[in-house]
Amino acid sequence: MLVVMQEGASEAQTEKVISRLVEMGFTVHRSTGVRHTVLGGVGPIDDFDPAILEVMEGVKECHRIVSPYKLASRHFKPAGTIIKIGSLDIGDSKIVSMAGPCSIENQEQIESAAEIVASGGARVIRGGAFKPRSSPYSFQGMGEEGLRILRSAADRHGLLVVSEVMDQTQIPLLFEYADILQVGARNMQNFNLLRELGKIRKPVLLKRGVAATVEELLLSAEYIMSGGNYEVILCERGIRTFETSTRNTMDIAAIPVLKRLTHLPVIADPSHGTGKRDYVLPMARAAVAAGADGLLVEVHPDPDRAISDGAQTLRPHQFSEMMQQIRAIAAAIGRAA
Amino acid sequence: MLVVMQEGASEAQTEKVISRLVEMGFTVHRSTGVRHTVLGGVGPIDDFDPAILEVMEGVKECHRIVSPYKLASRHFKPAGTIIKIGSLDIGDSKIVSMAGPCSIENQEQIESAAEIVASGGARVIRGGAFKPRSSPYSFQGMGEEGLRILRSAADRHGLLVVSEVMDQTQIPLLFEYADILQVGARNMQNFNLLRELGKIRKPVLLKRGVAATVEELLLSAEYIMSGGNYEVILCERGIRTFETSTRNTMDIAAIPVLKRLTHLPVIADPSHGTGKRDYVLPMARAAVAAGADGLLVEVHPDPDRAISDGAQTLRPHQFSEMMQQIRAIAAAIGRAA
Amino acid sequence: MLVVMQEGASEAQTEKVISRLVEMGFTVHRSTGVRHTVLGGVGPIDDFDPAILEVMEGVKECHRIVSPYKLASRHFKPAGTIIKIGSLDIGDSKIVSMAGPCSIENQEQIESAAEIVASGGARVIRGGAFKPRSSPYSFQGMGEEGLRILRSAADRHGLLVVSEVMDQTQIPLLFEYADILQVGARNMQNFNLLRELGKIRKPVLLKRGVAATVEELLLSAEYIMSGGNYEVILCERGIRTFETSTRNTMDIAAIPVLKRLTHLPVIADPSHGTGKRDYVLPMARAAVAAGADGLLVEVHPDPDRAISDGAQTLRPHQFSEMMQQIRAIAAAIGRAA
Amino acid sequence: MLVVMQEGASEAQTEKVISRLVEMGFTVHRSTGVRHTVLGGVGPIDDFDPAILEVMEGVKECHRIVSPYKLASRHFKPAGTIIKIGSLDIGDSKIVSMAGPCSIENQEQIESAAEIVASGGARVIRGGAFKPRSSPYSFQGMGEEGLRILRSAADRHGLLVVSEVMDQTQIPLLFEYADILQVGARNMQNFNLLRELGKIRKPVLLKRGVAATVEELLLSAEYIMSGGNYEVILCERGIRTFETSTRNTMDIAAIPVLKRLTHLPVIADPSHGTGKRDYVLPMARAAVAAGADGLLVEVHPDPDRAISDGAQTLRPHQFSEMMQQIRAIAAAIGRAA
Repeated sequence: MLVVMQEGASEAQTEKVISRLVEMGFTVHRSTGVRHTVLGGVGPIDDFDPAILEVMEGVKECHRIVSPYKLASRHFKPAGTIIKIGSLDIGDSKIVSMAGPCSIENQEQIESAAEIVASGGARVIRGGAFKPRSSPYSFQGMGEEGLRILRSAADRHGLLVVSEVMDQTQIPLLFEYADILQVGARNMQNFNLLRELGKIRKPVLLKRGVAATVEELLLSAEYIMSGGNYEVILCERGIRTFETSTRNTMDIAAIPVLKRLTHLPVIADPSHGTGKRDYVLPMARAAVAAGADGLLVEVHPDPDRAISDGAQTLRPHQFSEMMQQIRAIAAAIGRAA
Repeated sequence: MLVVMQEGASEAQTEKVISRLVEMGFTVHRSTGVRHTVLGGVGPIDDFDPAILEVMEGVKECHRIVSPYKLASRHFKPAGTIIKIGSLDIGDSKIVSMAGPCSIENQEQIESAAEIVASGGARVIRGGAFKPRSSPYSFQGMGEEGLRILRSAADRHGLLVVSEVMDQTQIPLLFEYADILQVGARNMQNFNLLRELGKIRKPVLLKRGVAATVEELLLSAEYIMSGGNYEVILCERGIRTFETSTRNTMDIAAIPVLKRLTHLPVIADPSHGTGKRDYVLPMARAAVAAGADGLLVEVHPDPDRAISDGAQTLRPHQFSEMMQQIRAIAAAIGRAA
Repeated sequence: MLVVMQEGASEAQTEKVISRLVEMGFTVHRSTGVRHTVLGGVGPIDDFDPAILEVMEGVKECHRIVSPYKLASRHFKPAGTIIKIGSLDIGDSKIVSMAGPCSIENQEQIESAAEIVASGGARVIRGGAFKPRSSPYSFQGMGEEGLRILRSAADRHGLLVVSEVMDQTQIPLLFEYADILQVGARNMQNFNLLRELGKIRKPVLLKRGVAATVEELLLSAEYIMSGGNYEVILCERGIRTFETSTRNTMDIAAIPVLKRLTHLPVIADPSHGTGKRDYVLPMARAAVAAGADGLLVEVHPDPDRAISDGAQTLRPHQFSEMMQQIRAIAAAIGRAA
Repeated sequence: MLVVMQEGASEAQTEKVISRLVEMGFTVHRSTGVRHTVLGGVGPIDDFDPAILEVMEGVKECHRIVSPYKLASRHFKPAGTIIKIGSLDIGDSKIVSMAGPCSIENQEQIESAAEIVASGGARVIRGGAFKPRSSPYSFQGMGEEGLRILRSAADRHGLLVVSEVMDQTQIPLLFEYADILQVGARNMQNFNLLRELGKIRKPVLLKRGVAATVEELLLSAEYIMSGGNYEVILCERGIRTFETSTRNTMDIAAIPVLKRLTHLPVIADPSHGTGKRDYVLPMARAAVAAGADGLLVEVHPDPDRAISDGAQTLRPHQFSEMMQQIRAIAAAIGRAA
């Protein structure tokens, strides 16, 4: 904890801050400069809102010097985490592709999607059983029946399953049918859900919220890890900005930033990141070129008939083209896909 | 639905779009201009992702012309909604103040807070029993015991209670102890929670998400209303922008924008909106001057000792000063407070 | 300058940073904590990009502890600056209104506008002679002839003149005709223009850029002041965010933030801040309630016929209504208008 | 022009809007739906602020259906523009690299930089002679002497020169020394500068403003092109968002979006886009993978001693590494570098 006093702060103000720090359990080092007095607090407390000190009289600013996350930090575990699910390694040099429709609609659609996904060379199929739509008048998902259909098609095609868990009550259901439990962008700070996911022993795919910083994403991963579940996959999927030509603005730089700050695998979702299928291919290439460990994309046998997210869903031939392009990019940076 | 074809779009492309619209149930009006052909689709479907048509070949852009919300719109109910809870009217000419600590910490703190809130002239006490903290290592709230303490102190001081519901499983508990159920900014698009809140018959205070547009806030209100619960209070509490001198950027203009688009009451939360107590007073005045129907602020007997949000929590004397200022501003615009 | 070393940074890395700081002229205080070593650099250098140290090996983060502006800071001059132009005081307890059309269109329009502005009780007339339009095919302004018309109408009605200077070559012209030279939002970081404005002795109205932080606005003011021109009026006029229901998002909280950080007068422009005339009145009230020292608004005898910015321009009766409301709000907070 | 009337708009309101459109020169097509009346205006006017109609009574919303730019649009010129400067083709299949220091500091530095740039395989050297620094107390550039040094070093190494023009008065100077005139992000909407650049016959490198949309960037290009200078190179260099782990957020998706909307060459600047040198390599790879026609990066013989932007400036060995990586990525997508 570093507290910088204002120019001209009185001795009484400074001492009041010191007392407050001591009371909180910090050992305080004082350093008096030409213009500013700086107080360094060393102590047992890491989780701390610097604003509490910043509103004290005479304080100019306050900086937390210990990152608020530990288990997720690269310093804690310098080697990258590799998450193993059967024969699949996530976070290793081979780039992992996860693909499938936005919503599970019916058996025929999923069977056809699984065929497309597997033949393109992806290893994981995605599909939503519960659809949190922004309008109350929309299709809300097939629920457990959908999960059963997805699991069965995945098994027939040798694929793993990733599917979204909407709240903590759904964990047992998803645990039964999915290999990876996905936390959507809107739930990135649903701390009750994160806490419960910390208690299970299956990988969690955690999507970045549209208004979340990289640090907040890592803190949400920490929430899960602090419960004992260390298998967290981070996913960049676009943030909200003033630009409207794409649905969100994909923060591709977050990929190398995350790879530096954390040991966890980082993947990218160019479907939600752009919102339009024609931009999915270039952004998938960009994400891999920037160092992503994998991709999550939407593909549907007939996107024009998709119940949800059709505009951002790849046609089968585009998906196959994307997989080829990804392999070429991966090779160019010394990886495989 | 309006579809604008690109300059030079072929007749075949245009006809494909018309077929698609017809197939979806629209009656199509075609209007051919010098440069662009425009298709107007009239039909039974209101909930529709324009991007689906925008990605068709030859399409330049697509506009939805019916607002995606109905029950919440001012057109649906031109007179403003007044929510009555006992003798309190929310949305009427008198400005309603809701105040109290961020977290319920213990009986003494709440008793003291209730005293401050009531004597300042506010009618509703706030206090959180479940604290969704961004760090897994923080205090997580007193739960039901906290709610019992809050209810009891409120009753002694003739106050109503507003408290946050974190997910749908907590609805019965909050329904028992609170007069108004608050949905936090992070849950604004937790559609499972919204759907269940539509089934109860108690007012809901719905906070705008930090990355949510005004239209998305109204669509979340619609979610609740479509279930039959028409008593929704909207709350502006700041959005996330690049500016860091305040915790969030309060979008004060959203107050008159909302008052124009919807009949629902609109309040403002300058505590979360600014994150620092010294800015709460000017922003409370600004919100009332801009037309807010009420305020939600944090006050604590001793903010320096508050477990959470201390920096943005008013001291007792500041709260009392704020209430006086609000009364003066309300009078200046022909209202009371 | 505070440099926080990473957990586990080597002694060699720490010493390299110390050498670098010493070489730059800093005296270095070293403080070794349980996890982090912190280096405090005290020295003659205030203008410094902390990123230079942040990219050194072993460095976790770096904080500048001296504000990059001095002359503009409240600490430098605790009492507020009052800018006197003839009998007008800007920054004193009386709120100053500046109003007029976006563009100077012709003599009749300006004469009529001056009549409206003066009879409403405003003291300064605005009007643009050079219109930097976003389309190359639009009206570009009347130039010097327009300024002559504006000056003459202002003089007849006892008004002062504020008008925008687009680049440093126009300073002599504006200096001749205007009492206050306005720097537009797009020019807030046109440092050549700011430097030249520092050499003149007339007040400058400096608008915040749509992507500028409060600190950057103050640094631009510092640019002007460092040349010897201390009469700078700051103007909040909305920042760019994801919200589209208004043209920009007015950062009303920036008003109290600025009043705390600087001694300079702060005004608000709700016309550009909202982009729609119906929102100008509530936002003008909000700005005054939040502590603004003045307002800058667009009014036109016939906004439906205005060449530019018609949608955000008040009708004459709305302007008169606004002036009355502002007086009531000012009185409520112990000021006049 | 499409005007959508509100539900329940009166016949009188609709007719008033029709009259206004007719008066403006539009031919109006009226289409009456179940809920909304839609007016389609076809006419000679392309440059038009839809807000003017939106504030009329009874109007729900208004959409401009003709893009505000023409010369810059892909529709106007379906084949991509290739800008030829001597033997260099910008916009062709070969990716063009431009590199050099932020500021021209002295002859030795530039000579050394030119050696690094040329031996790495880049074709254009960059270097700023006028430095618009955000602090008034910083180094402001070498001016014409710097340009002379840059030109001479470039000639010795067979390189072309790109350098920034800060305002229209500097055009003759830059025209003399540089092959490409750069417009910085802060000047993207300096319309006086753009207009004058339309009159010269040398390529212009136009950087996207930090708060500018893709459409606004194209409109600025249109400004230059409408004057007769069709050689405009667009440059994505990051936009301002809430994320602070990088200096700006590079909008990599803007690259494929621009390639679809315009025929002009598109390059990327990962130095300003990230602000930290370690992220320049992955983002350079990402930009090329996404379809960029070139790169603009900062490299310095000794970035630790650079006068400006040192933190984001590549070390010589990093630049050489980047050039090799770019060649591999280019090959993977069927291009060269």
